[in-house]
Amino acid sequence: MPASRAPSRAADVRSFADRLAALVEERRSQVCLGLDPVPGDPPWTGSDRGLADPRARAAQAVLAGSLELIERAGPSCVAVKPQLARFECLGAPGWAALEAIVGAAHAAGLLVIADGKRGDVPLSAAAYGEAMVGSTTTPWGPVCGLAADAFTANPLMGGDSLEPLIAAAERAAAGVFFLVRTSNPGAADVLDLSVEGRPVHELLAERVAALAARLRGSGGLSGVGAVVGGTEPGFLDRLRELMPEAIMLIPGIGAQGGKAEDVGAAFAPGPSAALVTASRSIATAGDPGAAAEQLRESVWAAAAAARAGP
Amino acid sequence: MPASRAPSRAADVRSFADRLAALVEERRSQVCLGLDPVPGDPPWTGSDRGLADPRARAAQAVLAGSLELIERAGPSCVAVKPQLARFECLGAPGWAALEAIVGAAHAAGLLVIADGKRGDVPLSAAAYGEAMVGSTTTPWGPVCGLAADAFTANPLMGGDSLEPLIAAAERAAAGVFFLVRTSNPGAADVLDLSVEGRPVHELLAERVAALAARLRGSGGLSGVGAVVGGTEPGFLDRLRELMPEAIMLIPGIGAQGGKAEDVGAAFAPGPSAALVTASRSIATAGDPGAAAEQLRESVWAAAAAARAGP
Repeated sequence: MPASRAPSRAADVRSFADRLAALVEERRSQVCLGLDPVPGDPPWTGSDRGLADPRARAAQAVLAGSLELIERAGPSCVAVKPQLARFECLGAPGWAALEAIVGAAHAAGLLVIADGKRGDVPLSAAAYGEAMVGSTTTPWGPVCGLAADAFTANPLMGGDSLEPLIAAAERAAAGVFFLVRTSNPGAADVLDLSVEGRPVHELLAERVAALAARLRGSGGLSGVGAVVGGTEPGFLDRLRELMPEAIMLIPGIGAQGGKAEDVGAAFAPGPSAALVTASRSIATAGDPGAAAEQLRESVWAAAAAARAGP
Repeated sequence: MPASRAPSRAADVRSFADRLAALVEERRSQVCLGLDPVPGDPPWTGSDRGLADPRARAAQAVLAGSLELIERAGPSCVAVKPQLARFECLGAPGWAALEAIVGAAHAAGLLVIADGKRGDVPLSAAAYGEAMVGSTTTPWGPVCGLAADAFTANPLMGGDSLEPLIAAAERAAAGVFFLVRTSNPGAADVLDLSVEGRPVHELLAERVAALAARLRGSGGLSGVGAVVGGTEPGFLDRLRELMPEAIMLIPGIGAQGGKAEDVGAAFAPGPSAALVTASRSIATAGDPGAAAEQLRESVWAAAAAARAGP
């Protein structure tokens, strides 16, 4: 990594929603490539570059494998979603690899969604906003963060904890995907609890919907988005109804068992109203490019069919 | 930072709860020094070391100021709590500074609580566990994470998302503090929602209590802990009743308006049953050592008074 760091995002002043819409049309794709590198597993096997330190070697392998995935699968996708946990566990070299991956994804014309599910009290949330999509003011000049185009966030701590994240996204013309109904089986434990007859995830959805204007693009969709798991498609119709403008980020397709055909409802407002993310099903495929292309085709068809109506 | 990285925690096989209990007795302190560095603000003003890159310079200032705080205020404390957002916003050099701070805190005899409020689907949660207190297996050898003694986590995603975090803590004899009732005003939005007449934070408390055995120390307290804000002491009594063994991490004292005198109830099970964290009120004091010592005295007195009964 160079010592000095400049924002890697091109000077594109359009909103996240509009940048995404343009890319979706251009590539006829709504696929987001999840990057969850496991050091040593293909394609993160690394080279024989002779680094002695396991940590530096693992970070190098994670970087090289991710760049390979971006090169092979990227053309069928519109975004990449690095899972921050997988970089954090490699410490400072892992974070440096993450920064290089953000730059490479941008160079390949892809949007970057930093998947860290951050959330904290307002002062700390402001720092997370700076880390993900903004910059930190210092006496020595501004320090650019990850320069992601959007990031995932956890809404448990309430309205004042969301505000600085949205403000950071506003300044950066970025997006924020709040967890609304996640794809893991345990999601039911808290997110499906019933509050006066309504599940918590619906209340979160209403909160997301109420904030839509803050990051609304010219096409009406909003970068105040929502993470909605694709493993239980039954929720999608209702959540789309509650969040008519929110761009949805849909994990759980592929390795976790969700099917592209089942998430059509998410696309009701338009072809760029949702992103389907896939990680392992692309990374571990014999031909990641073909796997991504196949997913692109099925999601595109499902989205088009849903909009055409029954 | 050296290229190679070894675990900085001493080979202490006792549980987090037991290590904390011993330190609390030894130092007669239940104070946790929050490290929320703001580059350029005292004591994070940096030196004139002539680094050209603003980011490297900011990371150096953050490191130097934090080491100064540990030196001055550390003796009155038993733990430090770095706010991860403040390091992430400085990228890879920020993370390297964080790693150096963990080592320095351990060298000063302090426990480290990594405050990142992490939480994710099981596979990613496992990586967060490795990042915070564990190590990542790679073909080139294990890669040690932050080597914190405990970390904060967000329980929104439910039981299966907590499991890998607790498993990582078990392997490392570490602790996990789950968000139960935070100190920000917006905490009421979700955590106080009523589910069949009971607030969500009480349901989360029961979940924490049910896991106590997993990280229970020999003194009966558990490292499956809870973050409970000190700004609304009315909750403390009830939450202590629901979580009789959980070590509580109590932010909000000092700059956020909470008072040490009001949190006595948290200490009902014993002197090491809670940690009171303070960041700005110590860091921005003219004499951080005196400020920490004053807080140590008032918390110690409040805890003793609560246990003596009315």
